[in-house]
Amino acid sequence: MAILVVGSVAFDSIETPHGKRAKILGGAATHFALAASYFTDVRVIAVVGEDFLPEHEAVFAKRGIDTKGIERASGLTFHWTGAYAGTLAEAETLGTDLNVFERFEPKIPEAYKDSEYLFLANIDPVLQARVRSHMPKVRMVCGDTMNYWIKDHAANLAKVLRELDVLLINDGEARMLSGETNAVKAAEKVLAMGPKSLVVKHGEYGATVFFGEQAFVSAKKARPFRAPALPLAEVVDPTGAGDSFAGGFYGYLASQPELTPEVFRRAMFYGGVMGSFAVERFGTERLQAVTRAEIDARFELFREISHLDFAAV
Amino acid sequence: MAILVVGSVAFDSIETPHGKRAKILGGAATHFALAASYFTDVRVIAVVGEDFLPEHEAVFAKRGIDTKGIERASGLTFHWTGAYAGTLAEAETLGTDLNVFERFEPKIPEAYKDSEYLFLANIDPVLQARVRSHMPKVRMVCGDTMNYWIKDHAANLAKVLRELDVLLINDGEARMLSGETNAVKAAEKVLAMGPKSLVVKHGEYGATVFFGEQAFVSAKKARPFRAPALPLAEVVDPTGAGDSFAGGFYGYLASQPELTPEVFRRAMFYGGVMGSFAVERFGTERLQAVTRAEIDARFELFREISHLDFAAV
Repeated sequence: MAILVVGSVAFDSIETPHGKRAKILGGAATHFALAASYFTDVRVIAVVGEDFLPEHEAVFAKRGIDTKGIERASGLTFHWTGAYAGTLAEAETLGTDLNVFERFEPKIPEAYKDSEYLFLANIDPVLQARVRSHMPKVRMVCGDTMNYWIKDHAANLAKVLRELDVLLINDGEARMLSGETNAVKAAEKVLAMGPKSLVVKHGEYGATVFFGEQAFVSAKKARPFRAPALPLAEVVDPTGAGDSFAGGFYGYLASQPELTPEVFRRAMFYGGVMGSFAVERFGTERLQAVTRAEIDARFELFREISHLDFAAV
Repeated sequence: MAILVVGSVAFDSIETPHGKRAKILGGAATHFALAASYFTDVRVIAVVGEDFLPEHEAVFAKRGIDTKGIERASGLTFHWTGAYAGTLAEAETLGTDLNVFERFEPKIPEAYKDSEYLFLANIDPVLQARVRSHMPKVRMVCGDTMNYWIKDHAANLAKVLRELDVLLINDGEARMLSGETNAVKAAEKVLAMGPKSLVVKHGEYGATVFFGEQAFVSAKKARPFRAPALPLAEVVDPTGAGDSFAGGFYGYLASQPELTPEVFRRAMFYGGVMGSFAVERFGTERLQAVTRAEIDARFELFREISHLDFAAV
């Protein structure tokens, strides 16, 4: 079933210990859409500027991603500049030129209205709520956010949280949102804010999902689940790893007829798989070129490195 | 088969957000021995002072741990004072009174000479090497170390590393020992220093084992394996979590007839299980009272929270 994603399509200028790139295609919606496109149909709502060229458009088209909802505005595309050092765990933002993104007003094309899965990437919660309200019949809503909205737009964010089936954030964001340092207490507080489930990403250590009482129609409350991340010898560029996780995770969910705890677990693994591919090259390079066979082989590798009963040799 | 552990038996004065305790029984060898005692016979070599009373001795005796090798010296027992705040990820050391531990000269009782498994807890690598050299027929050697020895006693530590079947350290120690920030590259460098396998502990995120070419007699090089940690709502006192992990891990290994990749994986889970119990109460309180049935139930819980094909409800 089709996923509608609303978020940023951007250019990134990135420096890591492995090199640097200037103005390469990036943005949360881009990474998400590419990762999800290996599992299901994806439709994108975003805004770009005049520097968004046919070659960038082609990246989406080649993966069969519907770009009718990518609006062209006069001006330049959102441009983020950042650098990574040390363990590459966190980016240092050197520049954020919002450009046309500053006045982003998501418009939902008529042909998108039947999308069954909605992904609200990290944008102003006012816009997230507005898109949500225009998609009343959607089957599932998954959302992301970040420190800035948690800290300075708490009331707006609270409205979005109440509408979410899945909130996808990282450890630091979970602590900030809840005011709790303990991961389990943080999860309980966040779930009490409304989302039916909470996926907390731990960077190189994988991710944990916590379920609320209402997470599954046909099941009692399920226990948390921990998915590993793949120990990688070369992390070339961590940009978009979290959005790629989200794309693999949600893409797999949307491809399945029913949401069960088992499907959710597999989705966590596919999230880790797509995140692990994303960081192997700069920008979206790896996500453009990976194959479904490689994805499934890596899924099995994730199983092998975490399951007791897997033949290890 | 019997494990011989050499390390510290100490008193800890600890403050955490859950309270404080003064001079409670602790030390690496203590936590290790208690955790391992649920799986196999354990013998301890350590030194204590005149303040080590029958009530402390009884903690070992009740778990059937052989304390013939715990030497009584005149003076006071090693006393560590520390505090935890925030996420409880790291202790702040407020005092280290080595006392009788300062002149610790491990002596191996004759009755310990047939021990098949040796655990070298975190002590001066000169002493680790000496004990190792007096146990030539041991079947397996596992060791721990810490930043202080890595930084200022590198040459002595290098000799110990060449003798180890398993080195058990945490992320920060692996980075310091290897000079690498990437976890996989760090592991490769550490394995090149001699240990046949390397277990890296990630605190609340579990642990990863990396295998060298020679890790298994009857197998090709095995892939890394990631064991989860249990998301815990209450971490009362993290002191000894790593040593308890080591005890569960090595105790299980020593209880098995053969070292296979599958046995190693299960050992990683039992390590996590014992670590998760250890932090639920101050000091050794929980490790004294846990039952084998609770241990096995928690093992299944670890499987449930990490395996795709487990019934989740």
